[in-house]
Amino acid sequence: MNRTLTLNYCVEPFSEDHTGSLRWGVLGNLLLRTASLHAAAHGFGYDDMIRTGHVWVLSRLVIEMDRMPRTGETFRLSTWVPSFYRQFTDRLYTVATAQGQPLGHARSVWALIDTQTRRPLNLENLPGGGFTSVLEPRSVPVAPPGRIHVDTTTPARTLTAGYCDLDINGHVNSIRYIEMALDLLGPERYDTLRPQRVEAAYAAEACMGDRLCLFRQDNSPAEGAVEIRSADGRSLFKTLVAFAPL
Amino acid sequence: MNRTLTLNYCVEPFSEDHTGSLRWGVLGNLLLRTASLHAAAHGFGYDDMIRTGHVWVLSRLVIEMDRMPRTGETFRLSTWVPSFYRQFTDRLYTVATAQGQPLGHARSVWALIDTQTRRPLNLENLPGGGFTSVLEPRSVPVAPPGRIHVDTTTPARTLTAGYCDLDINGHVNSIRYIEMALDLLGPERYDTLRPQRVEAAYAAEACMGDRLCLFRQDNSPAEGAVEIRSADGRSLFKTLVAFAPL
Repeated sequence: MNRTLTLNYCVEPFSEDHTGSLRWGVLGNLLLRTASLHAAAHGFGYDDMIRTGHVWVLSRLVIEMDRMPRTGETFRLSTWVPSFYRQFTDRLYTVATAQGQPLGHARSVWALIDTQTRRPLNLENLPGGGFTSVLEPRSVPVAPPGRIHVDTTTPARTLTAGYCDLDINGHVNSIRYIEMALDLLGPERYDTLRPQRVEAAYAAEACMGDRLCLFRQDNSPAEGAVEIRSADGRSLFKTLVAFAPL
Repeated sequence: MNRTLTLNYCVEPFSEDHTGSLRWGVLGNLLLRTASLHAAAHGFGYDDMIRTGHVWVLSRLVIEMDRMPRTGETFRLSTWVPSFYRQFTDRLYTVATAQGQPLGHARSVWALIDTQTRRPLNLENLPGGGFTSVLEPRSVPVAPPGRIHVDTTTPARTLTAGYCDLDINGHVNSIRYIEMALDLLGPERYDTLRPQRVEAAYAAEACMGDRLCLFRQDNSPAEGAVEIRSADGRSLFKTLVAFAPL
């Protein structure tokens, strides 16, 4: 079986932003969807894992887009797993035109959590070598995630996690945090800029009804960071967004 | 050409709510997407209309779901136009299982607006009879929308319309208002109830950065209404939601 899964998508009506480009939220969920289908095809998808009391948890996500596909445009999304190490596995992505010209790339880091103990498994100790047979040691031209610092002490906005924010596990959807942050870093930036690199770090989960405090830090016109903390001050999520001219 | 467009969809990973059912927001945008493709196939889609300086504007939307499709389930979405009258056209929808068993229905009312004057066209006066040749006079078992009253005077929540809320016209996406309202009507209801009928009325548009004031009115545990008003008190959106046991 091919170690890389490639699926074709189209920028469909009602999946664009106000400039006619694919929405970041839609792209993010398509990355997760394709990852999920790739994992399922290789026997380590959501259903396989939940059966043994485990669940994949997203730890880091970096998306860099040189150009977003435009309304009506067909694009290809490819994903593969290049490596794992102790509690983490990398997963990479390429977004390309229908002709295979790269539009952008993404990298993500996942942990496999025991749903009872909430502790991560050591992926190097899995029976039968674990995911070794799936590995495809090919890289992407995206700098790995670094540490994100948000020093702001006053929340710029507070939100309540709602029914429509949830994923199937009852937690706020990973991509929804990115949308909340992109919203907060506007509106003025979006007249002349577009997100070019979005780096996200996931620390803890939020449930329906939880109060989310959003802290905004503008490093420059072309770079902003957002941290989302719980009402009691725990860090849930951080993101660093680099903008490029429209 | 068939006057009804039917497309197959699947409840894909990351399109479910916390119970494993298709998210209302995803369903809503699929209704609009299918409508858009149906209109384009018959020569009156977004591109056709924008070319002559017109745009379709959603005025009313009612969705009733006896059962939401579940994770991994394939479902069919059909749409057709039964009638038009002066400034408005009806558009109906059926959501069904892969075997054709109805899961729910929807009805919507649209106006065709001149992008310069923002005034609706009289659809009965279009050249060549307008959309007459497309009409499919078949109904759905969904009560038409009524008047929605929200008498609350203190906002339960205020939000700022953000970059990720926008549609291709630069206005808050029609379905996003419904998500904001469903979020506000929780969280406690969603432990035992699910939305069964969502009735939405669109009065005016909001842009990025606009302050949205959400007014909540609980008519009963099984019925809630939400009105969204602009900072200067103009009504933008109203919805009435009926809940059914999970």
